[in-house]
Amino acid sequence: MKRQHRWVLLVAASSTVTLASAADLETHMSKSSNWAAQAGDYANHRYSELKQINASNVGRMQVAWTMSTGVLRGHEGSPLVIGDTMYIHTPFPNNVFAVNLKDQSYKWKYEPKQDASVVPVMCCDTVNRGLAYGDGKILLQQADTTLVALDANTGKVMWSAKNGDPKIGETNTNAPHVFKDTVITGISGGEFGVRGRLIAYDLATGKKKWTAWSTGPDKEVLIDPAKTMTWTNGKMAPVGADSSIKSWKGDQWKLGGGTTWGWYAYDPKLNLVYYGTGNPGTWNPSQRPGDNKWSMTIFARDLNTGMAKWAYQMTPHDEWDYDGINEMLLVDLNIKGKQVPAVVHFDRNGFGYTLNRDTGELLVAEKYDPTVNWATKVDMKTGRPVVDKKYSPGTTGPDVNVKDICPAALGTKDQQPASYDRKSGLIMVPTNHVCMTYEPFQVEYTAGQPFVGATLTMYPTPGSHGGMGNFIAWDAAQGKIMWSKPERFSVWSGALTTAGDVVFYGTLEGYIKAVSPKDGKELWKFKTPSGIIGNVFTYEYGGKQYVGVYSGIGGWAGIGMAAGLTESTEGLGAVGGYKDLAKYTTLGGSLFIFGLPDSTGSATTALK
Amino acid sequence: MKRQHRWVLLVAASSTVTLASAADLETHMSKSSNWAAQAGDYANHRYSELKQINASNVGRMQVAWTMSTGVLRGHEGSPLVIGDTMYIHTPFPNNVFAVNLKDQSYKWKYEPKQDASVVPVMCCDTVNRGLAYGDGKILLQQADTTLVALDANTGKVMWSAKNGDPKIGETNTNAPHVFKDTVITGISGGEFGVRGRLIAYDLATGKKKWTAWSTGPDKEVLIDPAKTMTWTNGKMAPVGADSSIKSWKGDQWKLGGGTTWGWYAYDPKLNLVYYGTGNPGTWNPSQRPGDNKWSMTIFARDLNTGMAKWAYQMTPHDEWDYDGINEMLLVDLNIKGKQVPAVVHFDRNGFGYTLNRDTGELLVAEKYDPTVNWATKVDMKTGRPVVDKKYSPGTTGPDVNVKDICPAALGTKDQQPASYDRKSGLIMVPTNHVCMTYEPFQVEYTAGQPFVGATLTMYPTPGSHGGMGNFIAWDAAQGKIMWSKPERFSVWSGALTTAGDVVFYGTLEGYIKAVSPKDGKELWKFKTPSGIIGNVFTYEYGGKQYVGVYSGIGGWAGIGMAAGLTESTEGLGAVGGYKDLAKYTTLGGSLFIFGLPDSTGSATTALK
Ligand SMILES: O=C(O)c1cc(C(=O)O)c2c(n1)C(=O)C(=O)c1cc(C(=O)O)[nH]c1-2
Ligand SMILES: O=C(O)c1cc(C(=O)O)c2c(n1)C(=O)C(=O)c1cc(C(=O)O)[nH]c1-2
Repeated sequence: MKRQHRWVLLVAASSTVTLASAADLETHMSKSSNWAAQAGDYANHRYSELKQINASNVGRMQVAWTMSTGVLRGHEGSPLVIGDTMYIHTPFPNNVFAVNLKDQSYKWKYEPKQDASVVPVMCCDTVNRGLAYGDGKILLQQADTTLVALDANTGKVMWSAKNGDPKIGETNTNAPHVFKDTVITGISGGEFGVRGRLIAYDLATGKKKWTAWSTGPDKEVLIDPAKTMTWTNGKMAPVGADSSIKSWKGDQWKLGGGTTWGWYAYDPKLNLVYYGTGNPGTWNPSQRPGDNKWSMTIFARDLNTGMAKWAYQMTPHDEWDYDGINEMLLVDLNIKGKQVPAVVHFDRNGFGYTLNRDTGELLVAEKYDPTVNWATKVDMKTGRPVVDKKYSPGTTGPDVNVKDICPAALGTKDQQPASYDRKSGLIMVPTNHVCMTYEPFQVEYTAGQPFVGATLTMYPTPGSHGGMGNFIAWDAAQGKIMWSKPERFSVWSGALTTAGDVVFYGTLEGYIKAVSPKDGKELWKFKTPSGIIGNVFTYEYGGKQYVGVYSGIGGWAGIGMAAGLTESTEGLGAVGGYKDLAKYTTLGGSLFIFGLPDSTGSATTALK
Repeated sequence: MKRQHRWVLLVAASSTVTLASAADLETHMSKSSNWAAQAGDYANHRYSELKQINASNVGRMQVAWTMSTGVLRGHEGSPLVIGDTMYIHTPFPNNVFAVNLKDQSYKWKYEPKQDASVVPVMCCDTVNRGLAYGDGKILLQQADTTLVALDANTGKVMWSAKNGDPKIGETNTNAPHVFKDTVITGISGGEFGVRGRLIAYDLATGKKKWTAWSTGPDKEVLIDPAKTMTWTNGKMAPVGADSSIKSWKGDQWKLGGGTTWGWYAYDPKLNLVYYGTGNPGTWNPSQRPGDNKWSMTIFARDLNTGMAKWAYQMTPHDEWDYDGINEMLLVDLNIKGKQVPAVVHFDRNGFGYTLNRDTGELLVAEKYDPTVNWATKVDMKTGRPVVDKKYSPGTTGPDVNVKDICPAALGTKDQQPASYDRKSGLIMVPTNHVCMTYEPFQVEYTAGQPFVGATLTMYPTPGSHGGMGNFIAWDAAQGKIMWSKPERFSVWSGALTTAGDVVFYGTLEGYIKAVSPKDGKELWKFKTPSGIIGNVFTYEYGGKQYVGVYSGIGGWAGIGMAAGLTESTEGLGAVGGYKDLAKYTTLGGSLFIFGLPDSTGSATTALK
């Protein structure tokens, strides 16, 4: 209980000193009946205090109601629930529906007219990771890089802001994040030579507050060479002047990648925003010598100014496409007897990192899949991975096919967010268990064309259980897997932990599953119409707890189905790797809401 | 029990004297665990002997499993179930999936490559009314007029036959029907000046057996002027020579319509096939004087030769688009103390007809919605409707807007099939409750272009309950509504009656409902992801009864949503009439399977 209490405080902290707008979201997040943010809170916990549905009754859970989104292809993210209204979003064309929870009729529909030419420059399906809420507004980040604020009551556009250019491959898939009176959004296009940045807007007006580039001059990266710190020789030290520029050949940083399409977090006490940057431009490492900073980096930035307090690069000079964008979980941990305000991050590169989120100190870096082989370990002094040359396409050079690299390019985990179980203190992590061959080749940049330069194949980790995923419980203080539940396919869906001692996640075949946080034992499952890559969420309405999830296969793992591709190496190797999905599921797009049966045995809406 | 027994016999009759192929389907239909034909039998009953789900436990019914079809737009018809395999179909592009009922994985998928240019010449959405089974084959009638026989075990094409030309507006939406060793199919395109016909193929080889045109010379309509009978002056009489040709001006019969996209029936004892023909070419009646035979007609034809035994035209010289294609229900009735082998037909024109299916004699013709006003009654001597000139666009002439005609062009019932409850002897009928304005105008024929010539608006029947539909129980011997349950929208879904004293149907908002056959009282409902225009079906697997239905809004009623139309008069008036649908539902495409909970309270697949 003490741990829970602390989090409630953290979430609502300093709300009294901020504007009414910020208080609005924080008040809504503090009520467990709502699901007012994609992760339920600022800290990316995806934990709910609701416990009507618990380990002993979850086996009787039924479908309460369902809703088609009217769009096929990959459905990531989750709806939001504020009071008696649910806000649903779709993949491109990014429709938004406000649903009256009383009778599931529509309050309003927002259906943007977007130029479909954005679709072919989206690397990994036409996904959208969801809406944000704040100050009576629903925030939608459209694929065409337009950020829109809608009146939550009417669906009318209150302001909009354009933050990129699809003609040069800039698109969006990330959920916007509201932190107090600021909306934060990112950019996609690491496979098109896009230069990544995080952008902050004023929630009330849509006025741009700051842009923090991932690569380039200090004043554009919002780095203070003397004050922005990084892990150096076992301690924190200033990054120094031109830390990014110096780590690139010539002006390659201009096409440097480091895009920002993940899940950000915010600590209101420290007033810091946390997020990760993606892969450096081109997948052919020989073409871009250097550490390629600040791609593959965790940044902690001041919410008001965007200035970087600290940065940590996980995969210097990436050779595997191990984007660093995965979610940042803010948890307070007891590490070797000391209470630490930590940020935990499960990187694509297969290491689970724990850092002090205040100072940026590196505390833990351990493999969260023991079969990870591209690096033997992270050197805790330098903070750099110790790369195994056998699995280094940059060492072997272009046009050599490097075999059996684990994990594959889509990492031990991709966008699918983990959940922090505040009760057990463990983090529940949906993972991939996939390896690859990787053959880089020379590529020239052409604006709006793929800037990749590598041919990949993917397959289940050899010599393992045969499946392509695991759902694991992680102790972030120790860097240790507590249990691991094998899955036939990668778990591409976000997890939910609850006070009812039940953990939920979805599978690519389309099952939503409830398991015990103690040992991963399956307590319940249900087959939804299509594969699940959405995140499980929960809310309470009319005194009843509901659990919900989008069903709709797609994303990078499901790109073969979503885009109708059939060649093994298409989708950068995912098509061949996940070809068996077609035996189990089909494209779809719907929302499923589950609940416990009432006394008559029915979970469905009451008869009139 | 006596009544049931008789039907089992009728269904299986003479199977001993036919080929193995015919016996195959009849054996499968006789097992109530299967759903081996679209209506469950030859007689269009849509009745199941299963009764595990009954009036007292249906309230606890839950979703057992679900499956996306991967296609949006209108989902008509139902899957088939043969043993441990379910066969699923989709709207255009008409994919077929064989599903292993054990774990809902796919045995095979058939995904035809059809030219998408067929889509714009489909009048009323890209629907497909389902598959047929027979002789180890799955029969698919593609939209592009290709009839395909697939190996039920492998999905391999065994034969295919082309029966029309989309370039002149010929398409298909009907389910093929297997009657013994013959496959029967039809044609759509009444709105494109297509000349209707029914076509019979040999099930084993795909060789054409006969074509029976709806209009034209006797030898093409397969009429024997001396032997083909029709109701004349209170008794049956031969139709006489050139009965069709004479009823048209010049060679207008060549663009004469009379298409055949409905639900056919077969009586194995009489060896007769029953079906109805659609509207005559152009909706501007002044342009085509005469009775326009044999549009709007019930035909009884010999299965082997196609020769018409009798014909009955319900709406001579149609002025309202009251296609006569609705399903033919073969029931044995006691009419005024006499046992009669009857065919019952709920026509678009609002009259429920009962005829002697052996002789063709007209026995009953009564309104099954009391607000029908275009005709005061059917003259039982002539068999012709007594038209109210006030509602006759042919009388007022072109460019006059005739108001408040009831029913609207989509009839008191459209393709949504009724179900015969063998236990109560009543027929459960999903109906429309919609009126229209109708303004005809002169139109020239251009091949492949709409040949309509009328502007319509549609709206709920004025002065009634405000809704656009009713679900009714009909006594076909008396021609009497026994009860009527109002619905917000037309009930565009096919009904299912069961030995468990429960009747099922779906609504355009997306509810599947269970009601009592006694009084229409609602026993259970569940909101599926999209509107329902499919037909409810049932089967048994592993000792458990399941009830299922497709969810996917569309068809004529849902054409606004399905085709993205917004102008009120688009979709021939349906867009405006059904515009409120958008408040309640969204495009979708999935299959829902329901069952009772097991002892643990769960209806979902067992945990591994
Ligand atoms: O570099 C980029 O800008 C970028 C963007 C995205 C995206 O926006 O979805 C993905 C990736 N990269 C990527 O590397 C990746 O693995 C990935 C998976 C997914 C997904 O939604 O399943 N998106 C993306
Ligand atoms: O005249 C024709 O050939 C034709 C075809 C179809 C069809 O194939 O679906 C319909 C109609 N007419 C029609 O009049 C009609 O009301 C209708 C409704 C529907 C439907 O599936 O909802 N189809 C059709």
